[in-house]
Amino acid sequence: MPAWLITGSSRGIGFELAKQLAANSANTVFATCRKPDAANSLNELAKSHKNVHVVALDVDDEASAAAAAETVKSALPAGAGIDYLINNAGWGVRVSFEEEEIATIAAVFNTHVLGALRVFRAFLPLLKLGTRKVVVSVSSELGSLAYVDDPRVGSAFPSYSIAKTGLNMLTRKIAKQYPDFIVFAFAPGWIKTEMGGSGAEYEVDDAVKRHIKIYETATLEKHTDKFINQFEDPVAW
Amino acid sequence: MPAWLITGSSRGIGFELAKQLAANSANTVFATCRKPDAANSLNELAKSHKNVHVVALDVDDEASAAAAAETVKSALPAGAGIDYLINNAGWGVRVSFEEEEIATIAAVFNTHVLGALRVFRAFLPLLKLGTRKVVVSVSSELGSLAYVDDPRVGSAFPSYSIAKTGLNMLTRKIAKQYPDFIVFAFAPGWIKTEMGGSGAEYEVDDAVKRHIKIYETATLEKHTDKFINQFEDPVAW
Ligand SMILES: NC(=O)c1ccc[n+]([C@@H]2O[C@H](COP(=O)([O-])OP(=O)(O)OC[C@H]3O[C@@H](n4cnc5c(N)ncnc54)[C@H](OP(=O)(O)O)[C@@H]3O)[C@@H](O)[C@H]2O)c1
Ligand SMILES: NC(=O)c1ccc[n+]([C@@H]2O[C@H](COP(=O)([O-])OP(=O)(O)OC[C@H]3O[C@@H](n4cnc5c(N)ncnc54)[C@H](OP(=O)(O)O)[C@@H]3O)[C@@H](O)[C@H]2O)c1
Repeated sequence: MPAWLITGSSRGIGFELAKQLAANSANTVFATCRKPDAANSLNELAKSHKNVHVVALDVDDEASAAAAAETVKSALPAGAGIDYLINNAGWGVRVSFEEEEIATIAAVFNTHVLGALRVFRAFLPLLKLGTRKVVVSVSSELGSLAYVDDPRVGSAFPSYSIAKTGLNMLTRKIAKQYPDFIVFAFAPGWIKTEMGGSGAEYEVDDAVKRHIKIYETATLEKHTDKFINQFEDPVAW
Repeated sequence: MPAWLITGSSRGIGFELAKQLAANSANTVFATCRKPDAANSLNELAKSHKNVHVVALDVDDEASAAAAAETVKSALPAGAGIDYLINNAGWGVRVSFEEEEIATIAAVFNTHVLGALRVFRAFLPLLKLGTRKVVVSVSSELGSLAYVDDPRVGSAFPSYSIAKTGLNMLTRKIAKQYPDFIVFAFAPGWIKTEMGGSGAEYEVDDAVKRHIKIYETATLEKHTDKFINQFEDPVAW
């Protein structure tokens, strides 16, 4: 009975992940989002799938992460843990280097990097009880220092790139600190979501199918402390 | 008459840089620090060297950076600019991964990454007027994603590593945005300062001699958009 915790599952990649996982009744899915009352698709999904629990979690807020962990703990059988933590919540702005504001860089960093750490820490006791102990940082090629040379990137997306690079470093630190956890940074691909836009390269359902296969088969030997993409190819840090 | 702007020059690497540069009367040195009144060594240096100007600059504070740029502009001959901007100010904490606090990670990021950007933006008009247009991000091997594998590093120094990685990404973004500037990330070496400790590998005077040589001879072709150490060897991002 694998238990999954997903952040940012009101829409996009996070919602699709909850939806596809829900279709397998062996899974228990804790689909978290900032505003459960407004998460219509997620609430619909939970209505038709008893294995989906909608839980409030704003990754910017430590108290919210702690409360979510309490809620999840109460919903799990005694002694059971979380098998998969998917740190997926995120946002960005599309501005030029010169328009990017200091406050925005701080806020994006807060969600992607500090948010992932808040959630990791809040769920650490439950992760320790889990059988799989998989922790995924949903990152991006835009967080790769090598990828800056891509002519489509360059100086663009400073706050987003800086945050995802920071998330990658945090991921490596977690991997070193908890060597029995399967911890990796993951570039999901350029996907048609609100963030990716309609011109993106991949359909969310196809991509998430690939993501789930990787998450379910990830091993300490092959995945921990790595940065990989949806085809399991390595991405340069 | 090269003009230098150094952040965090009350002590350590920044102070030594100001001191060695002051010895060459061709240089104009804007040695900045948070509390000029308390910067005794720096004030002594300025007393004996007319080419040293002590200027208040707290890189955590946008208004302070703007005021410093105004002060520097007034002290320069009309139409003259800054040739070298050395983003050196920084701090860290020595705690384990588990003790590291979210607020500390945010604060270290604020100084190293946002601070470097605040100062860069405040001095951009003066950099554009400069002849050399050298911008150095004083980074660290601890900010290298590759270096995490070093057994002395691993999960240690999370806030510092995350901040220096972010600074490296910012440095690459600046390099792409301003292709006529010589912009690079620099690992100064493990140096005996308040931060480096007395057990560090290099003496500050020897190391800074090497640093200055690199800064003075840096070129667009060989240095821009690179991460190098005090021996001009490349450091992996
Ligand atoms: N789509 C792509 O092409 C692409 C490529 C590379 C990486 N990624 C990464 O993939 C992840 C998911 O992106 P997506 O494409 O699915 O984006 P999306 O459609 O915009 O969805 C983002 C989700 O994150 C949530 N979120 C934002 N800030 C949050 C916070 N502070 N706390 C909790 N939830 C928060 C949003 O919830 P609300 O409803 O509360 O706003 C939403 O559910 C992100 O980390 C993104 O950076 C996406
Ligand atoms: N020493 C090493 O082994 C080593 C190795 C790799 C990289 N580095 C980097 O080299 C740089 C200098 O380090 P150091 O060894 O010379 O350290 P240090 O002796 O501790 O000096 C740090 C300097 O930064 C200043 N500073 C700190 N926060 C500031 C802020 N918000 N605004 C303005 N100034 C601020 C301090 O000024 P106050 O007097 O106002 O506190 C001080 O002058 C740092 O970026 C550090 O990360 C050092």
